[in-house]
Amino acid sequence: MSPLMRAVVLVSGGLDSATTLAIAKEHGFTCHALSVDYGQRHRAELDAARTVALSQGAVEHRVVRVDLSGWGGSALTDANIRVPTEACEGIPVTYVPARNTIMLSLALGWAEVLKADAIFCGANAVDYSGYPDCRPEYFTAFQQLARLATKVGVEGAAIRIETPIIGLSKAEIIREGRRLGVDYSGTVSCYQANEAGEACGRCDACRLRREGFEREGLADPTRYAA
Amino acid sequence: MSPLMRAVVLVSGGLDSATTLAIAKEHGFTCHALSVDYGQRHRAELDAARTVALSQGAVEHRVVRVDLSGWGGSALTDANIRVPTEACEGIPVTYVPARNTIMLSLALGWAEVLKADAIFCGANAVDYSGYPDCRPEYFTAFQQLARLATKVGVEGAAIRIETPIIGLSKAEIIREGRRLGVDYSGTVSCYQANEAGEACGRCDACRLRREGFEREGLADPTRYAA
Repeated sequence: MSPLMRAVVLVSGGLDSATTLAIAKEHGFTCHALSVDYGQRHRAELDAARTVALSQGAVEHRVVRVDLSGWGGSALTDANIRVPTEACEGIPVTYVPARNTIMLSLALGWAEVLKADAIFCGANAVDYSGYPDCRPEYFTAFQQLARLATKVGVEGAAIRIETPIIGLSKAEIIREGRRLGVDYSGTVSCYQANEAGEACGRCDACRLRREGFEREGLADPTRYAA
Repeated sequence: MSPLMRAVVLVSGGLDSATTLAIAKEHGFTCHALSVDYGQRHRAELDAARTVALSQGAVEHRVVRVDLSGWGGSALTDANIRVPTEACEGIPVTYVPARNTIMLSLALGWAEVLKADAIFCGANAVDYSGYPDCRPEYFTAFQQLARLATKVGVEGAAIRIETPIIGLSKAEIIREGRRLGVDYSGTVSCYQANEAGEACGRCDACRLRREGFEREGLADPTRYAA
């Protein structure tokens, strides 16, 4: 692959997107990291995103602000909806309506300006919370949209939508990341981390992450709130 | 149609979306108007959007800010790229990468929170500037994406993407709007209107609008800069 290949990589500050960035880098892409400040509960996630982006060798990190807390509709964007700490049926209240579509559309705009070849997204459909916009068929539909939406698509090329960890378990993601030298101590997965980036240890994101380290027989580097 | 049908209507402040809002209203929808402040050249467009939304009977008008001028890539978001005043081949420099995808994805998020039935977008593929994200096949792809992206889609319903004026000429849009009582004097179509909302009279958007009024044999209510 040419060293001139460029990618926009969505980086949230969590474990999955940190691994995805390392994979994009290994595949020879020059990586432009994008985080979206959508009015989420805590700033620690965006601080972690910057740490991850720079430590994994992205050439730049950009944060775009789109405040979705104005209309709420999710435990992650509305302080009045509690983040659940027990398992639930169906799509949980931490689902943020259209979040991945909004983030991918921003990535698509930047990718077209950069003349990038690909967008990398760390979505996962194995150890995940059941969000509709994390499924492979969703990304296939976005790929089709990206081809029709853009000038580069009309001209016959296309910006590829890459989801390299979508079929991996959390344990497999961690194994892949460790092989690539990812330092997970700087990542924040928790839905309600405190300002210091310390995890609650009880939400769905904490549970999935902890089980991943356990299955790999690895020490969990997560910093938990006392 | 039930009077409880809800729609998010994308309102830019221009002629097309003002007409689209009037059509949504006529079809019995309770309309929630959405404008996106994406770092465009002038504020007059957003002022016009508010005027249009409220005068056409939207129950609320919301502006979401997403600053695309940070990465530029268009004459509408980068002050260093001149808005052309002559016809050009292909997709013009006023094309904003992924603009409709970004705006529709925001509309999708709000629509899901509101439990809305539809999103109305005033895109037009007849008298238009050749933007890829104004073509019918683009909206078909977005409809498919919307079904897969959302909790409501997974549950078997879907938020419909409605583009009622996509196949109309500018003159036909104006005729339809006049039938519905739209006051076009408050709309701003120009790509580079001044702070007072006065049009340049020379850009592609001004040309298409002026020709529409001429073909209808109507007085053009546009306020042009001296």
